[in-house]
Amino acid sequence: MSELRRDPVLDRWVIIAADRGRRPSDFKPEPPAPPPSACPFCVGNEAKTPPEVYAVRDGTLPNTRGWDVRVVPNKFPALTIEGDITHHGIGLLDWMTGIGAHEVVIESPEHSFRFDTAPVEHMLKVIGTFGQRLTDLRRDQRFRHIIVFRNWGADAGASLSHPHSQIIALSVVPDIMKQKLRAAREHFRHKERCIFCDLIEQEIALPDRVIFKNDHAVVLSPFAARFPFEAAVFPRRHSHDFTLMTPDEQVGFIEALQFVLQRYVTELSDPPYNLMVQTAPNLVARPGRPDYWGTLAFDFHWHVELIPRLTKMAGFEWGTGFFINPVAPEDAAGFLRAPTEAPATVH
Amino acid sequence: MSELRRDPVLDRWVIIAADRGRRPSDFKPEPPAPPPSACPFCVGNEAKTPPEVYAVRDGTLPNTRGWDVRVVPNKFPALTIEGDITHHGIGLLDWMTGIGAHEVVIESPEHSFRFDTAPVEHMLKVIGTFGQRLTDLRRDQRFRHIIVFRNWGADAGASLSHPHSQIIALSVVPDIMKQKLRAAREHFRHKERCIFCDLIEQEIALPDRVIFKNDHAVVLSPFAARFPFEAAVFPRRHSHDFTLMTPDEQVGFIEALQFVLQRYVTELSDPPYNLMVQTAPNLVARPGRPDYWGTLAFDFHWHVELIPRLTKMAGFEWGTGFFINPVAPEDAAGFLRAPTEAPATVH
Repeated sequence: MSELRRDPVLDRWVIIAADRGRRPSDFKPEPPAPPPSACPFCVGNEAKTPPEVYAVRDGTLPNTRGWDVRVVPNKFPALTIEGDITHHGIGLLDWMTGIGAHEVVIESPEHSFRFDTAPVEHMLKVIGTFGQRLTDLRRDQRFRHIIVFRNWGADAGASLSHPHSQIIALSVVPDIMKQKLRAAREHFRHKERCIFCDLIEQEIALPDRVIFKNDHAVVLSPFAARFPFEAAVFPRRHSHDFTLMTPDEQVGFIEALQFVLQRYVTELSDPPYNLMVQTAPNLVARPGRPDYWGTLAFDFHWHVELIPRLTKMAGFEWGTGFFINPVAPEDAAGFLRAPTEAPATVH
Repeated sequence: MSELRRDPVLDRWVIIAADRGRRPSDFKPEPPAPPPSACPFCVGNEAKTPPEVYAVRDGTLPNTRGWDVRVVPNKFPALTIEGDITHHGIGLLDWMTGIGAHEVVIESPEHSFRFDTAPVEHMLKVIGTFGQRLTDLRRDQRFRHIIVFRNWGADAGASLSHPHSQIIALSVVPDIMKQKLRAAREHFRHKERCIFCDLIEQEIALPDRVIFKNDHAVVLSPFAARFPFEAAVFPRRHSHDFTLMTPDEQVGFIEALQFVLQRYVTELSDPPYNLMVQTAPNLVARPGRPDYWGTLAFDFHWHVELIPRLTKMAGFEWGTGFFINPVAPEDAAGFLRAPTEAPATVH
């Protein structure tokens, strides 16, 4: 059974997933990847994964061939799906049972599938699958927040090379989301406007840090980016929830996402990256036990964060929480935007 | 000129060190390390670094041979030493000039020097050098906090293989230190006791997570460790300041630190690691502009954090601030403590 433990000084929760039972020798350099024929995510190997919880299929039977996108429970889950959330403590130390969901979205039967070059029709199926799983997992009142993320490349933490995303449902709202909700509520209280909408408008007006925009989406190089060539994709219409895009907005979002991913390939030689979908926490209405963070959900403005993994975290970052970014976000935007749109001042 | 930029939503500061002028092509795989004869930190190559700001020498001239430990400014500093701290803003965006110090402590003339096997006499010189630089930099009233850290191995962010530590002096107190000070002050207000002293006492009584102890220092496997085999070295006597160790305490601290570093070598095959010295922020007394965090300094209990770099940060961690640790801290302590002291229950 996993545990969620609270650091008594930093007031920070950590998942202790000791079920994985790893010993020191498990952290030696990793063995070479298995050949594609042994890849558990490739078409024809459906029996090598736990039974699917969802798939985009054209009438074929579950756990057989004939799927476009397939969702299975993670074989080594960080959290346990079965059980109640119970709280415990000894002296200064607090913990709770590590209840949650941990699913894998196998994005294509093809081992060579890529987000940056996929047909829009297939990307719509992937995004639709994210939406279906978010909607389904939100029905479970134990889960307060759900995150969808994608690790591309071994240096970004992908343990299997077959393209996939992951979904984790948590029994607590994470600190980063709490701070985003707090800032959005505070701004709305003063101005009756969304802080993200205001930021997007200010950045489009400037527009040194705009990487790409169309009618539905904008890609920004964040003003205080922690990493070189970090980017964020925002919908231009205010919406707290990733699952509420219209079909046109979905196409606009995919165009924006694929633009910046293609620029990563050409400008940064296909770097490893992490992609995170930041959507509002669950609006659960538990009788007698309202969820404070859920009530702030409508203040949120969903977005997708992209971090290419080009630099290494070191002692300074771990010890202070401060980051050193060696590339000015304006310069990063200059390199990433379409060549014909690059202002003459960018070297 | 570097800048400190504030993220308008996350209220988080980032150092934009664009002086380094890095282009996308600078992030391609790194070239092989230079041969030792070209190492700028090796004895005989003193002219290849900026002039030293401090050295442990036996009467020899600065920037010549004959040193045991040598401190030089970082050739590619993240922060600028010259100038005033000025604050700026446009709409939602805030920044200040990136003023600070960035020094390199070359720990030995020998390229093959190691912390885990160094003679105690030499380690005393290294620790004394940390203390001298902390004391000297604290005289500069622009600096509110100073961190000493050590990146061991390329995967831990060390860009040169010659053993060295770094010192960064900041014009702001970092968030992690603020939270530690806040928790310490809150605990003291309720109990008139130090939260770290209480934690150390509770952990020694338990003692599942004690890796090592002597009369002066204790090494703990933190209850909510974010990383497998993470460790923290605490002085057993309450003290807010790393520079205030007695000679006996220095020897006890070195014994404790070297114990756990030797166990990393034997149990984890000499992994890359980050070492961070967490000591209280500066007690500056600026007329008319008191420093709130400085007034909390005495509540702090200095310590050293150690993170072996065995796992990779991925989308879940970046997107939530939550960490997944696959090794229970009690199991980690079992593997790291001296073999003869391992309780029978540890497999």
